[in-house]
Amino acid sequence: MRPEAPQMKALRLKSWKSEPVLENVPVPEPGPGEVLVQVGAAGACHSDLHLMHDFEDAALPWQPPFTLGHENAGWVHRVGQGVTGLEPGDPVAVVGAWGCGACRRCLDGLETYCERPDLAPVPSGGGGLGLDGGMAEYLLVPAARHVVPLPEGLDPVDAAPLTDAGLTPYHAVRRSAAKLTPGSTAVVMGVGGLGHLAVQILTATTAARVIAVDPRGSARDLATECGAECVLAPGPDLVPEIRDATDGLGADVVLDMVGSDETLAAAAASMRPLGDLTIVGLGGGTLPVSFFGLPYEASVQTTYWGNRRELVEVLALAARGLLRPETTIYTLDDAAQAYRDLAHETVTGRAVVVPTDSYRG
Amino acid sequence: MRPEAPQMKALRLKSWKSEPVLENVPVPEPGPGEVLVQVGAAGACHSDLHLMHDFEDAALPWQPPFTLGHENAGWVHRVGQGVTGLEPGDPVAVVGAWGCGACRRCLDGLETYCERPDLAPVPSGGGGLGLDGGMAEYLLVPAARHVVPLPEGLDPVDAAPLTDAGLTPYHAVRRSAAKLTPGSTAVVMGVGGLGHLAVQILTATTAARVIAVDPRGSARDLATECGAECVLAPGPDLVPEIRDATDGLGADVVLDMVGSDETLAAAAASMRPLGDLTIVGLGGGTLPVSFFGLPYEASVQTTYWGNRRELVEVLALAARGLLRPETTIYTLDDAAQAYRDLAHETVTGRAVVVPTDSYRG
Amino acid sequence: MRPEAPQMKALRLKSWKSEPVLENVPVPEPGPGEVLVQVGAAGACHSDLHLMHDFEDAALPWQPPFTLGHENAGWVHRVGQGVTGLEPGDPVAVVGAWGCGACRRCLDGLETYCERPDLAPVPSGGGGLGLDGGMAEYLLVPAARHVVPLPEGLDPVDAAPLTDAGLTPYHAVRRSAAKLTPGSTAVVMGVGGLGHLAVQILTATTAARVIAVDPRGSARDLATECGAECVLAPGPDLVPEIRDATDGLGADVVLDMVGSDETLAAAAASMRPLGDLTIVGLGGGTLPVSFFGLPYEASVQTTYWGNRRELVEVLALAARGLLRPETTIYTLDDAAQAYRDLAHETVTGRAVVVPTDSYRG
Amino acid sequence: MRPEAPQMKALRLKSWKSEPVLENVPVPEPGPGEVLVQVGAAGACHSDLHLMHDFEDAALPWQPPFTLGHENAGWVHRVGQGVTGLEPGDPVAVVGAWGCGACRRCLDGLETYCERPDLAPVPSGGGGLGLDGGMAEYLLVPAARHVVPLPEGLDPVDAAPLTDAGLTPYHAVRRSAAKLTPGSTAVVMGVGGLGHLAVQILTATTAARVIAVDPRGSARDLATECGAECVLAPGPDLVPEIRDATDGLGADVVLDMVGSDETLAAAAASMRPLGDLTIVGLGGGTLPVSFFGLPYEASVQTTYWGNRRELVEVLALAARGLLRPETTIYTLDDAAQAYRDLAHETVTGRAVVVPTDSYRG
Repeated sequence: MRPEAPQMKALRLKSWKSEPVLENVPVPEPGPGEVLVQVGAAGACHSDLHLMHDFEDAALPWQPPFTLGHENAGWVHRVGQGVTGLEPGDPVAVVGAWGCGACRRCLDGLETYCERPDLAPVPSGGGGLGLDGGMAEYLLVPAARHVVPLPEGLDPVDAAPLTDAGLTPYHAVRRSAAKLTPGSTAVVMGVGGLGHLAVQILTATTAARVIAVDPRGSARDLATECGAECVLAPGPDLVPEIRDATDGLGADVVLDMVGSDETLAAAAASMRPLGDLTIVGLGGGTLPVSFFGLPYEASVQTTYWGNRRELVEVLALAARGLLRPETTIYTLDDAAQAYRDLAHETVTGRAVVVPTDSYRG
Repeated sequence: MRPEAPQMKALRLKSWKSEPVLENVPVPEPGPGEVLVQVGAAGACHSDLHLMHDFEDAALPWQPPFTLGHENAGWVHRVGQGVTGLEPGDPVAVVGAWGCGACRRCLDGLETYCERPDLAPVPSGGGGLGLDGGMAEYLLVPAARHVVPLPEGLDPVDAAPLTDAGLTPYHAVRRSAAKLTPGSTAVVMGVGGLGHLAVQILTATTAARVIAVDPRGSARDLATECGAECVLAPGPDLVPEIRDATDGLGADVVLDMVGSDETLAAAAASMRPLGDLTIVGLGGGTLPVSFFGLPYEASVQTTYWGNRRELVEVLALAARGLLRPETTIYTLDDAAQAYRDLAHETVTGRAVVVPTDSYRG
Repeated sequence: MRPEAPQMKALRLKSWKSEPVLENVPVPEPGPGEVLVQVGAAGACHSDLHLMHDFEDAALPWQPPFTLGHENAGWVHRVGQGVTGLEPGDPVAVVGAWGCGACRRCLDGLETYCERPDLAPVPSGGGGLGLDGGMAEYLLVPAARHVVPLPEGLDPVDAAPLTDAGLTPYHAVRRSAAKLTPGSTAVVMGVGGLGHLAVQILTATTAARVIAVDPRGSARDLATECGAECVLAPGPDLVPEIRDATDGLGADVVLDMVGSDETLAAAAASMRPLGDLTIVGLGGGTLPVSFFGLPYEASVQTTYWGNRRELVEVLALAARGLLRPETTIYTLDDAAQAYRDLAHETVTGRAVVVPTDSYRG
Repeated sequence: MRPEAPQMKALRLKSWKSEPVLENVPVPEPGPGEVLVQVGAAGACHSDLHLMHDFEDAALPWQPPFTLGHENAGWVHRVGQGVTGLEPGDPVAVVGAWGCGACRRCLDGLETYCERPDLAPVPSGGGGLGLDGGMAEYLLVPAARHVVPLPEGLDPVDAAPLTDAGLTPYHAVRRSAAKLTPGSTAVVMGVGGLGHLAVQILTATTAARVIAVDPRGSARDLATECGAECVLAPGPDLVPEIRDATDGLGADVVLDMVGSDETLAAAAASMRPLGDLTIVGLGGGTLPVSFFGLPYEASVQTTYWGNRRELVEVLALAARGLLRPETTIYTLDDAAQAYRDLAHETVTGRAVVVPTDSYRG
């Protein structure tokens, strides 16, 4: 790095088991095929708290230092050689999972499930996950395919949280689309940052009836506003209540946004034969699956994040007003505070850090 | 028939090229497996006008006399031997296409496409179509599988028109469900009795953007109320307007509820590669299809009516308030007038004949 | 029963925890909608041994006495009132799962997953499972839809075992058809009566590569004859061998025909992300499923038997020589011996009892 | 170009309406993201004859001069900056359709249907189609995603014709996979270079019965060898013969590899309701489609070429011996002769030009 290179502020994780710090780093230069994005918004995700506190050397295939932030949107600033179709100033969202781009899964657009992580920019990671992320004035995106133009009417602050908190439930909902016919019932377990968007996505893209489950009254109220027809609290009556609400048949799809032993057990007991039980939340739970332990042909699976095609669809939903994440805004200088608030659970909706609030050219 | 057998009023087509007449006929007795329905509502369909005026002997595999009415709902009155799960007084809708019940298509639930019509109650017909229909106090349904319980909150007057005017566009929409992703566009050509329900079904079950096309301002207003985001009038600008409204890409799905040469040509010119052009209307048009005449892999096909599984879903939509047909009510004594009004196009929404307005036991 | 009624021989389970006995019973009369089948062949299934030995009162929703045999084929003998399209002498196979015929699942053809078992001929059972089955000269089938005409070139002896031992793996394979693209790999765990047919079905209907796993050399040889490209024995090297055989990626589909703790654990460890792990065997095992315990979005589910549509397809495969069950033939007088041989594992292929070897009229 | 740059031979179309000529051109240098392939085989396609004879200025969005050859395979020779996962000497096939890589269709892997051709390397073309193709010692591929590693056991001579003559029917077959169940029937109209591979693909990947239609006895014999169960000649009896062969039901899928008025009319008259009539051949025919002109819900569509995902699958089939194109080999010096033989229809199978027969490093 030459001393005269332009500098920018970035919130960086310097080592495992530490708080991130704001420091100056050089503005990156986009190489061939790369895109430099001026960051308009970067979401602060609970999983970043895990990065700060719960990992140590060799636990992951990558390590600090790197800039945080894997939910990013902004404006194209500069493009590298060979990049076409993107102009400086174009508002864009960034797909977060960066695969090798050449394996079967990547070619199908499923870079989350890249089968050659050794050939990816970083194995099983991305910007804010081993590579520098969006909690900075600029973000270097390693391939133009990870940059999605924002539809008219959507700005980076609204778009950023959708790239993870919107995309993850979207992927989980859409893989079950064939089962979410009119007359079917979807249960969303846990109405937090992802769950309230899951309810909105179900309401916007299907005519399934939505039952939302959360111990907090405020979360249940939010679920109702988002389109849930029925809201329930966990407890010993939950499963019979779901059965009652479904004429005894059970739920066609359960999205478990929590993923604890308790929610998984309740989900399994609430299923209809041929249904989908999809584990989205990282609650650490385990579900014992056996022939007579679940209804016939009810499928149990995890899902992880989503892909570019789906992000295009998520943004289209949001641009039409059908998907509205709740957000609380922080400046980049306050980004560390955003994480502290997140840790203390005092944030309403998604915490979004806004490094730059309009395109500077 | 014994002289003392109970009698009922029925609106009957006595011969081809004639007006139907109201007369007394015996109340049918349900044989084994059959169900006698007390008719609560019977929709008057444009296609009945064709039956009255446009056919002659040997044109169809069946002939008059028969009672009109193929859009029916009411209450179970009596069940034949071997029928389980239906009780007198149960409110029900009637699936109109009665196939053989045993061929590949019937076993898949597609009795509209029965491959052994020679083994069906009447070949390629049903109640009101060769066999006695629902414009009477009672309707004999030849198999219990054609009877669908009404969900709570839906009465026969609302349900009857859904069995054809709702079911037909529902089938056409749902077969294209995989192409109706968020960000896609569906065009509905013709916002009449079926078209306005097509718009509602698209809005309720997908997040596709709907463009509705109709020459009548009132129909375009109705489309807007039903959820269309964009309404257009036919004419030389229609195709460029659809292209403009879709960023130049064209429509993912076009449902042509008219089916004339003009609408088919406009539909074809509006398609996106890989889209669906589905011909629902019987407007008599022809579309010349050639390799370079349509976008790559755009599919052209007809659809016809729908099946029981889909009717269950249609009724579920209606019970939740997501599907609301407009109707004008007539008594059975006025049923012939309903058809005259239909012929003069003075009916608002679907003309529905109500032979009996509550279950008499 | 009138004393002069015609009699026939039947192998009957008289009480729980007993051996079946051959005795004379009246030939049934087909009522409305019913079909009386002259039995040409009835397969003896391992699950019948469970019926004889492992149940007691109130364990199931039905109880003895009844005639055994749920894998049946033969010829139409007489049809009840209202049955069309079937003539005496028509060779037929019998669909074994008899649901209510009217619930959502039955209407979709999935009578195995009937949601109103209280309205079925017997709850969650069928012929040979609570009702009289096919180990007799005649079998009463309660609805014509359960009777499937045999395609030319297939006789009842070949068809009977296909109605369960063929249909069950067929359903399991076909539900994963979209994942069984050329270049994919399917693993069949356990090459017994169902497993060797699973290998044949995979080979006939997909271009997936098949890996078959069995501890017995003879079973592995059979798998090779049936089309498996790779055969492996269980043991500590199994999972790495499957990984090696799939370029490290894992299997797209695993059909576990055993279902023990060991096979389930090996199956889970062999999966590719987005794959299907389908539990077919009743080995009593349990698989603990957690977020990081299986590859991303690998689905775990059971399947149970299959439906009429699928049986039509199974028979079509067999008629073309693409599906060939191995069988050992017994007379009806020797049927009890067939079960003893089955219990001692001395039967080659499927034991098939032949009550009558040609249509008697 | 510097005079000392390395030179290579290339068969170039110098202007519209001319024969191609062999001349020396510089060996290209791969820029960032690009791959230089040493050509091992380049197929000569009928459509190249159209390029030579039937076009003029402004008919296409690109023009001569360029090197011919759009069916290519060989070995990676050099990779540009940023290309990972490919090593010199790796045997590869080349995906021929080069889209923008960023539009919705490209992101779905469907570069044949690129929606931003203005951003592609050449609009609606590729190597051998506006850009330099593979009838040369080296081929410059503009992005690594267009290069597919050959599976073990497949060499470039076998692989090259599969990239078009194999891939095109593969795409057409696979889009109809859900309709090609056991018991279904597929008709292949025209058993030429693509048609004989269509029969093999149907046989390898489905259990559908294949009927092949061709006026030439030798072509019908080839179809039989490739797996067709029934072969027919065109003529007035064709449609009734297809009906006879399908129990009167008609074909589930018809692939029209000819595409003339006659074949399209016969195809339409042979369809089963709900079937697919897919137009692959460029015979210039037109099919008039109207509501009662085709069976209910039979879909008519074209298909064009295929995508990378599908090519991976095609190569996997070939590597296992399930797909075997017939080929006649020419040297690059004889490439112009290959086209003359093609024009005179004296080539057996696909004409394949072999510029270099092993990797030279």
